[in-house]
Amino acid sequence: MDDQDVGKDQSVGLVTPQTAVFDETLALKSGATLPGFSLAFETYGALNAARSNAVLVCHALSGNHHVAGFYDAHHRKETLGWWDNLVGPGKPLDTRRFFVVGVNNLGGCHGSTGPMSIHPETKRPYGADFPLVTVEDWVAAQARLADYLGIDAWAAVIGGSLGGMQALQWTLEYPQRVRHGMVIASTPRLSAQNIAFNEVARQAILSDPDFHGGHYYECDPSAKQPVKPRNGLRLARMVGHITYLSDDQLAEKFGRRMRHGAHRFNYEVEFEIESYLRHQGDKFAETFDANTYLLATKALDYFDPAFDYAGDLRAALARARADFFVASFTTDWRFVPEKSREIVYALLHNGLNVSYAEIDCDAGHDSFLLATPHYHATLAAYLRGITL
Amino acid sequence: MDDQDVGKDQSVGLVTPQTAVFDETLALKSGATLPGFSLAFETYGALNAARSNAVLVCHALSGNHHVAGFYDAHHRKETLGWWDNLVGPGKPLDTRRFFVVGVNNLGGCHGSTGPMSIHPETKRPYGADFPLVTVEDWVAAQARLADYLGIDAWAAVIGGSLGGMQALQWTLEYPQRVRHGMVIASTPRLSAQNIAFNEVARQAILSDPDFHGGHYYECDPSAKQPVKPRNGLRLARMVGHITYLSDDQLAEKFGRRMRHGAHRFNYEVEFEIESYLRHQGDKFAETFDANTYLLATKALDYFDPAFDYAGDLRAALARARADFFVASFTTDWRFVPEKSREIVYALLHNGLNVSYAEIDCDAGHDSFLLATPHYHATLAAYLRGITL
Repeated sequence: MDDQDVGKDQSVGLVTPQTAVFDETLALKSGATLPGFSLAFETYGALNAARSNAVLVCHALSGNHHVAGFYDAHHRKETLGWWDNLVGPGKPLDTRRFFVVGVNNLGGCHGSTGPMSIHPETKRPYGADFPLVTVEDWVAAQARLADYLGIDAWAAVIGGSLGGMQALQWTLEYPQRVRHGMVIASTPRLSAQNIAFNEVARQAILSDPDFHGGHYYECDPSAKQPVKPRNGLRLARMVGHITYLSDDQLAEKFGRRMRHGAHRFNYEVEFEIESYLRHQGDKFAETFDANTYLLATKALDYFDPAFDYAGDLRAALARARADFFVASFTTDWRFVPEKSREIVYALLHNGLNVSYAEIDCDAGHDSFLLATPHYHATLAAYLRGITL
Repeated sequence: MDDQDVGKDQSVGLVTPQTAVFDETLALKSGATLPGFSLAFETYGALNAARSNAVLVCHALSGNHHVAGFYDAHHRKETLGWWDNLVGPGKPLDTRRFFVVGVNNLGGCHGSTGPMSIHPETKRPYGADFPLVTVEDWVAAQARLADYLGIDAWAAVIGGSLGGMQALQWTLEYPQRVRHGMVIASTPRLSAQNIAFNEVARQAILSDPDFHGGHYYECDPSAKQPVKPRNGLRLARMVGHITYLSDDQLAEKFGRRMRHGAHRFNYEVEFEIESYLRHQGDKFAETFDANTYLLATKALDYFDPAFDYAGDLRAALARARADFFVASFTTDWRFVPEKSREIVYALLHNGLNVSYAEIDCDAGHDSFLLATPHYHATLAAYLRGITL
C-alpha cells in the first residue's frame, strides 16, 4: 500500500453478484449426489494475463459471496460486503494487484444451491432433503468455480474460522492449485465444547414448532410473513454470538450497564447486553435460513483432516505444498491460539513455509473480521510478499 | 476427621424434609410483598446446647434443601442430596460436630413457596405472578428460618456459585449473625458474558409456545403429561451446562468421540457430547420448574453488593464482621478465580480474616460440587478451625 493511497476511496464500489451453473453431478462426502448446482459469486479486481493473481475468499458460518463493495449506488452501509475492510484498492488484499473471488458455499442461502432451492425431481424446495455438505464438498465445488473462471491455481485461498478450514482443506485436496493457504482464527478440528455450542443451536432450531421437519418454506405461503423457525434461529444466533466475542470485550462494551438505571424486576430488557443479544438474534433470524445454519454447523463439527490419519495431524497435512499464513487472536476462546499453533507445528513438521501471527486483539473470535492495525499490517505484508 | 473413620459409613442416612410456615408479610426488594410463605428445609446433626454449631448451606441455581442423605431407605443414588460428599459424619462439614441446615429458597420448586404455589388471593398457582426475588430476599427469608430454629448466629453460612452469593450477602445483611462466611466458586457480580448466557436461557423459556406467559400449570390438566415449556427449559439447561464445565474436562470426557464410529450425515446424535447434553437437558426439563429457573437467573443477574456503593466493592463489604473462607477453581471460566480474588481483596481491605484457596481442578465451575481431595481437605481444615 503506497502512502499516497491513504485517504483515498479504497472501496471496490458497486458490485454485482454472478452465478455459475454446473450441470455435472457432484458426489458428496455423505454418499449423496447433487445432479448439478449453482454457485453465487463475486469478483473484485482483474485477472492478469498469466491468471496467477486470483485469490479465493472463503466465508464462515454466516457469511456469503458478498465480500467487498456495495450493492447500492449510494454506498449504503447495510449493503457493504462482510470483509470490505480487507479487500479493495490499497487495502491489505489489494484489488489493484489481486483478482479476488468471493463465493457462497453449497447449501447456502444467498444464491447458491441450497435447502431453499427447488429440488429438480420434486419441483419443491429441498428443505430438509438437501444433503449435508462438508468442508471437503465446499472445496470440491469451489474447484469447479476455479475451472469455470479459468484459474488453474489460486495465488492464495484465504478464510477466517470455518473459512480458514476451507483454506486449509484446499491445500490438502488440491495441493497443486493453491500457492498460499491463509488460515485465520481457525482450528484443525472442533473441541467438544465447540460441538456442544453447535448442538444447542441445532436443538433450538430443530425443536422450534415452526421448523416443520425442515420443510417450513412450504407452509402457508399466503401468510403475511413466511413461516420459518425464527425463534430457534434467533436463539441459535444468540448463543453463537456470545462465543464469537470475548468476555473482556463484552465487559468493556456493555459491562453491567442498565437500560433504565434501576432494576425493573421483570423479563424485559434490563441490561444493555440483553438488548444487544436480542437485536443480533432478531436480525439474523430475518436474514438467514435455518436449514443452511444447521448444515453449516454440521460442516464445522465434521471437519477433521486428521480423522483418516488416526488423529495424526502431521500425517494429515503431509499432502500440502502451499506456503502458509496462519493467524490467531489472543482473546479467541472459541478457537484458541493453541489450535492454530497445532496447525503451524504440523505444517512445520512437513517442512512447509509457515508465517504465524498471534495477534493481540480483545474482540475474541470475531477479531478476524476487524481492521485492527497490527493484524491488517501483518496480512498486508504477507500478501505483498506473494509473487504473481 | 479421625483416621478411624475412614471406611466407615459417612452418610447422614435417611432424611425427611420439613416445612417452616411464616405468616408474616415479607417485603421484597422489588417492592412486592408476600403475605406469608413456607420454606422447605432439612437438618443433619444436632444443635448443641449453646446453639453455636449451626451451619446454613445455601443452594445454587438448580439446587434445593436436600443437601445430604437419602430419601430412600435403600439409599438409592437417585435420592442422594446434592452436596452429600461434603456433609455427614466424618465428612468435611462434619455432622457429628455441626448442625447443618439446608433450605429451598423462596421462589423454588421443591417445596418452598414459589411460582407453583397457590396464590392465596386467586386460589390458582402464582405462575408468572410470583414476584421476582433477589439474593437479599433469599437471605431475609433464611433469617426467618434461623429465628424459627432458634439460631441467633450461624457458625457458618456456606455456598457455591449462587449459594456463595447468599453466604456473602448474609455477612452484609446480618453481620452479627454469621461467624464465618464461606464463599465458593462465586463472584461479586455477574459479567456481561454471564448475563448474556442467562438471557439466552430465559429467551429459550419465554419464547417456548408451551410457556403460556408463565401460566402453563393451568393448561389442560387432563393431559397425560402436564403442559410446561419443556423444550425451552431443556435448551436453557443445555447452554447453562456447557458453562458449568471446562473445555478441558469436556475434551477429556467426550472429546470428539462418536457414537457410531462414522459420520451419519443427519441431525441425530453423532458425537457423544451431543448425547450427554441432550440427556442433561431432558432430565432437567422433567424435574425442574421453568418459572423458578427464570427467577433464579434474574437473582444471579441482579446480585451486586457494590451497586449501592458506586461500584466500590470495598465500601460495600465494610459492613461484614465475619471471618471468611473463599475458594475458586482454576478452570472455572464462568466465575473465574479473578472474581473470587476481588472479593478477597475487598475483605482484606476491611481488615477481615480471609482464607483463600485457588484450587487446581479440571472440572470448571462445577468443581465446587466435587470431592476433590485437596479441595475437601482445605474445606475440612477450615471447618475444623471454627470454634463452637
